[in-house]
Amino acid sequence: MTLPTEAEVLSWFEKLSNWGRWGPDDRLGTLNLITASTRVAASRLVSEGHVVSLAWDVDTTPQRDQTYGPPRRFFVTTGQGLADEHRIDPHGNPDNRMNGALEYLGYVFHGYSVTHLDALSHVFWDRKMYNGVPAELVSSSHGATAHDVTAVKGGVITRGILVDVPAFRGVDWLEPGDPVTATEVRAILAAQGTEVHSGDALLLRTGYGKRRAMQGPDDVRALGRAGWHASCAPLFHELGVSLIGADTAQDVVPSGYDSVVIPVHTLGLVAMGLYMIDNMNLEELSAKCASAGRHTFELVVSTIPFLGATGSPVNPLAVF
Amino acid sequence: MTLPTEAEVLSWFEKLSNWGRWGPDDRLGTLNLITASTRVAASRLVSEGHVVSLAWDVDTTPQRDQTYGPPRRFFVTTGQGLADEHRIDPHGNPDNRMNGALEYLGYVFHGYSVTHLDALSHVFWDRKMYNGVPAELVSSSHGATAHDVTAVKGGVITRGILVDVPAFRGVDWLEPGDPVTATEVRAILAAQGTEVHSGDALLLRTGYGKRRAMQGPDDVRALGRAGWHASCAPLFHELGVSLIGADTAQDVVPSGYDSVVIPVHTLGLVAMGLYMIDNMNLEELSAKCASAGRHTFELVVSTIPFLGATGSPVNPLAVF
Amino acid sequence: MTLPTEAEVLSWFEKLSNWGRWGPDDRLGTLNLITASTRVAASRLVSEGHVVSLAWDVDTTPQRDQTYGPPRRFFVTTGQGLADEHRIDPHGNPDNRMNGALEYLGYVFHGYSVTHLDALSHVFWDRKMYNGVPAELVSSSHGATAHDVTAVKGGVITRGILVDVPAFRGVDWLEPGDPVTATEVRAILAAQGTEVHSGDALLLRTGYGKRRAMQGPDDVRALGRAGWHASCAPLFHELGVSLIGADTAQDVVPSGYDSVVIPVHTLGLVAMGLYMIDNMNLEELSAKCASAGRHTFELVVSTIPFLGATGSPVNPLAVF
Amino acid sequence: MTLPTEAEVLSWFEKLSNWGRWGPDDRLGTLNLITASTRVAASRLVSEGHVVSLAWDVDTTPQRDQTYGPPRRFFVTTGQGLADEHRIDPHGNPDNRMNGALEYLGYVFHGYSVTHLDALSHVFWDRKMYNGVPAELVSSSHGATAHDVTAVKGGVITRGILVDVPAFRGVDWLEPGDPVTATEVRAILAAQGTEVHSGDALLLRTGYGKRRAMQGPDDVRALGRAGWHASCAPLFHELGVSLIGADTAQDVVPSGYDSVVIPVHTLGLVAMGLYMIDNMNLEELSAKCASAGRHTFELVVSTIPFLGATGSPVNPLAVF
Repeated sequence: MTLPTEAEVLSWFEKLSNWGRWGPDDRLGTLNLITASTRVAASRLVSEGHVVSLAWDVDTTPQRDQTYGPPRRFFVTTGQGLADEHRIDPHGNPDNRMNGALEYLGYVFHGYSVTHLDALSHVFWDRKMYNGVPAELVSSSHGATAHDVTAVKGGVITRGILVDVPAFRGVDWLEPGDPVTATEVRAILAAQGTEVHSGDALLLRTGYGKRRAMQGPDDVRALGRAGWHASCAPLFHELGVSLIGADTAQDVVPSGYDSVVIPVHTLGLVAMGLYMIDNMNLEELSAKCASAGRHTFELVVSTIPFLGATGSPVNPLAVF
Repeated sequence: MTLPTEAEVLSWFEKLSNWGRWGPDDRLGTLNLITASTRVAASRLVSEGHVVSLAWDVDTTPQRDQTYGPPRRFFVTTGQGLADEHRIDPHGNPDNRMNGALEYLGYVFHGYSVTHLDALSHVFWDRKMYNGVPAELVSSSHGATAHDVTAVKGGVITRGILVDVPAFRGVDWLEPGDPVTATEVRAILAAQGTEVHSGDALLLRTGYGKRRAMQGPDDVRALGRAGWHASCAPLFHELGVSLIGADTAQDVVPSGYDSVVIPVHTLGLVAMGLYMIDNMNLEELSAKCASAGRHTFELVVSTIPFLGATGSPVNPLAVF
Repeated sequence: MTLPTEAEVLSWFEKLSNWGRWGPDDRLGTLNLITASTRVAASRLVSEGHVVSLAWDVDTTPQRDQTYGPPRRFFVTTGQGLADEHRIDPHGNPDNRMNGALEYLGYVFHGYSVTHLDALSHVFWDRKMYNGVPAELVSSSHGATAHDVTAVKGGVITRGILVDVPAFRGVDWLEPGDPVTATEVRAILAAQGTEVHSGDALLLRTGYGKRRAMQGPDDVRALGRAGWHASCAPLFHELGVSLIGADTAQDVVPSGYDSVVIPVHTLGLVAMGLYMIDNMNLEELSAKCASAGRHTFELVVSTIPFLGATGSPVNPLAVF
Repeated sequence: MTLPTEAEVLSWFEKLSNWGRWGPDDRLGTLNLITASTRVAASRLVSEGHVVSLAWDVDTTPQRDQTYGPPRRFFVTTGQGLADEHRIDPHGNPDNRMNGALEYLGYVFHGYSVTHLDALSHVFWDRKMYNGVPAELVSSSHGATAHDVTAVKGGVITRGILVDVPAFRGVDWLEPGDPVTATEVRAILAAQGTEVHSGDALLLRTGYGKRRAMQGPDDVRALGRAGWHASCAPLFHELGVSLIGADTAQDVVPSGYDSVVIPVHTLGLVAMGLYMIDNMNLEELSAKCASAGRHTFELVVSTIPFLGATGSPVNPLAVF
């Protein structure tokens, strides 16, 4: 395959654009491709009643790939010292048989470690979000006053398809910086015997989860990361993909395109209105698909509807 | 119905106990009642492909019912000032066509406003959690080293049943402090024509969501709150309920039992290992059940697997 | 006194301007008026060795005047449960005789409750800070890259003067919205027998501290607040005041000038480079000045040098 | 010098104890040694009007010695985008000439990077704080309900003495793990010609600041750190030292005493009631003392009176 030139990639901001396709006020983008019958059909993929979580645990331990600092977990009340002589009961409860624990959780979920969904307010191109909404509507005082994550409050239920690159190539994992092109995605789908329907979700496994477990997290800025090549954007458009996911942050790093550093994020979120889930855990899913002899399943994604937020931590479920 | 005495309620810590029922190391409690075939059957309830979100938006605006302070949302980068003359690009990107926004989110999800699931580490009785685990294993330094929310990383997929009290009584909502007894729950289920199976989830609508929308949030400590009466605990046990939820924080406040202030929480989480979802939004669900002529649906709950946490904000989905 | 017109107040942005007065790169503004000999002279005011703190306690209890939410204090380790049977020592210390407690503190110090110093990056006029620095140099990603609080890392040591309005008027406190004009400030200084020297700090007591203690905190946005009238700005300029402080947030609210809502803040910080300390506790100081028969003392202000911050919580000390 | 045995060090918990010395309710500990006349005398050391800040900047950049994570600085409003076409004014101010910036600051100040004062609630020995107060009075719900930092709200003003070890030894800095014994402290004081009076503060310079600037921060847990040897505790007691400080976290690491890992902290805070300032910047002070030909100066320490906190970030000032 001849890789597209920088000019070609830039031309896709118009060619792949979904601006106006579902009306001027649309907030759902490619999730519009999921219809009621898509959901019913997805539910019919459930034959075993077996669930696979596609999220990593959120971990407060400092890690090299927590770009925006470690998640914090601060307890307000705990189970410690309930028998302490001088204990002050938080609720003024004298006999003190009932007690509880609760905590504050705070973190930046974007970046390279937490499994999360990007809302359409997360990325801008030429000062615009999807559907031409001005970038400045995402402000420090008011948050994302347009395209915040509450747009997907109804969740995502559709058919999920695993694109398992290491299984196809017969390797443990892809090395940092290794791109997965549209040509290879087509070849993998064919080899897997998977036909993509409009509204399906495509999940890319590069094996980073296995690599991280074996070799530890690394610094994406220094080493790069495997991921979708820019050439996949027209493929997503052609196939009618509703949602993409990956066990990295989608884009191969470096992308090879200086003027549009992360083309899958930028073309996807801004031009196409394509929601995406970064940093998924696809290891158990890979094993399950192999043993089940199929790479399709019901995918259920539920987001926390935090007003004004540009995305949400998620725990997507694959149901077989 | 004669309401149970305090001594009876206290006796239920033994009578309703599931300690050891699923082994000494069990972390799932009543979720063990959900089997693979429960999940397959639940998926077969999906006939329309229609989804109803059962969560409230997480709102940073200070509210009277945010017991532990308002959720915070702090942006690290925004879409503001992208054309500012003296702008310093966070990524040192000179041409500046691609930009992004991201934020820190921090909050205590427990309490009376955020829709959330309680893990089994949230409540203690006599310095013990479910299955006899010492309360002190939940500490400020290490978090919940037992029974943290990652136990339910696989989510909850089962049949959900709405118990719609205002619809049954023909009122807009229940007033603060109004209990829903086991007798009334049975009557509502009968009136709705709903038979409970082992593994089902029961969701209690008191109409608080409507009341809050009309009259504003109020202070539960001052006014009380409608909810399940303690007498429902043996009912949950008898019926094999896997999970409960409510549009309040489960327990009627005040509960009427001085020595066990919130008996549904305490008996449920500690004795029974019964997971529960507080502060659900059941308004749209109530309308949907009425129009669909059924009070059963597929319920999907996905939790954020934050290590050491005593629960998770959630956005449960009811699928018809 | 005839109060100045809006046009007059606006003209002061030029007339009172100190831009360029101490060089194009100056960060100290009116603190340049404090010389080495000012400091030596201030130290000579110490005759009794008596210290008065001019700060309020920072309180995590929600209060009506915490504009940006209550301060948070989250403990990481505590002194609880040190004898718990199943305790996990944070340091893996087996004999466990030595233990410690530590915490995370997080808050917005600006607003109407915490005693704090405003740095010159806190306020903009026509998109400029003091000395013509572009406002956009204060960004969410990088913080205040100009005029941050580290400019005053060397602290402020000078002669402080209390301007005690309630004592002068013979009242307990000034009501919300009551202005203190330049004419009254001159009269109070004369009545107190206090002559102002270049480099002195002027501290305004409106009695709000007493009012707050008696009647509770109130909402400045609803009720207004007593404070300096705009007419004081030229007076500060004429007298060579290095720093101002008040037991409110300086400006009388409402100020009476629609186009420059808080003129003392805006003229002071932007045009004059005048640092200011909001929300001081001047109650004990008032009593001490009365009993000592003098309204002058050594004032010592030390700021936390947080890089990129627009100010600092402070605990100013008045030394007699 | 023969170093004290572990048994000797343990015996000092009784021998050096100040429990009860200033009454059963005392919160000031050795700060009681500072009298009004101490303060007057300290002010008389001011002859030049020259101030040296003894704090490091608080830096949000992740560093190896931030034991409890990097400080966070989150802006709520900034100076960015004030000319943006679609800007939403936070105050609904239409003409928009006045604007402002403000931020949330959040951090754990204890540890090895931020300059801070330890309050007497920071460390426990045998489940007790200074004066026999139970450790469990420091709880996650209520904070330090005894010996919190508001005890020193009046600040510390006294004579400071620099103990400049690298200058004495003729080296750039002390290597990690190098102890400064009582014998050497006496020798340095003699060489500097400094006689210690009751109420003085002793500040130890190991040169770590210079080392950190040249070689970067390192991990104290892996490498150790230079500091006071345990043998200094009786010396402090004998000399009547009111406060100690250091450019490290006081104790040499490792201390050489397994059963009392950080003896200076533990004996000081618990037995003696000796307040201490960790992680000071003593580099400029060292140069100033050398050029001024004296190692004594007025020391002014002002703490932020955060209720329930176990200490405070500080910016101590040395005034010459």
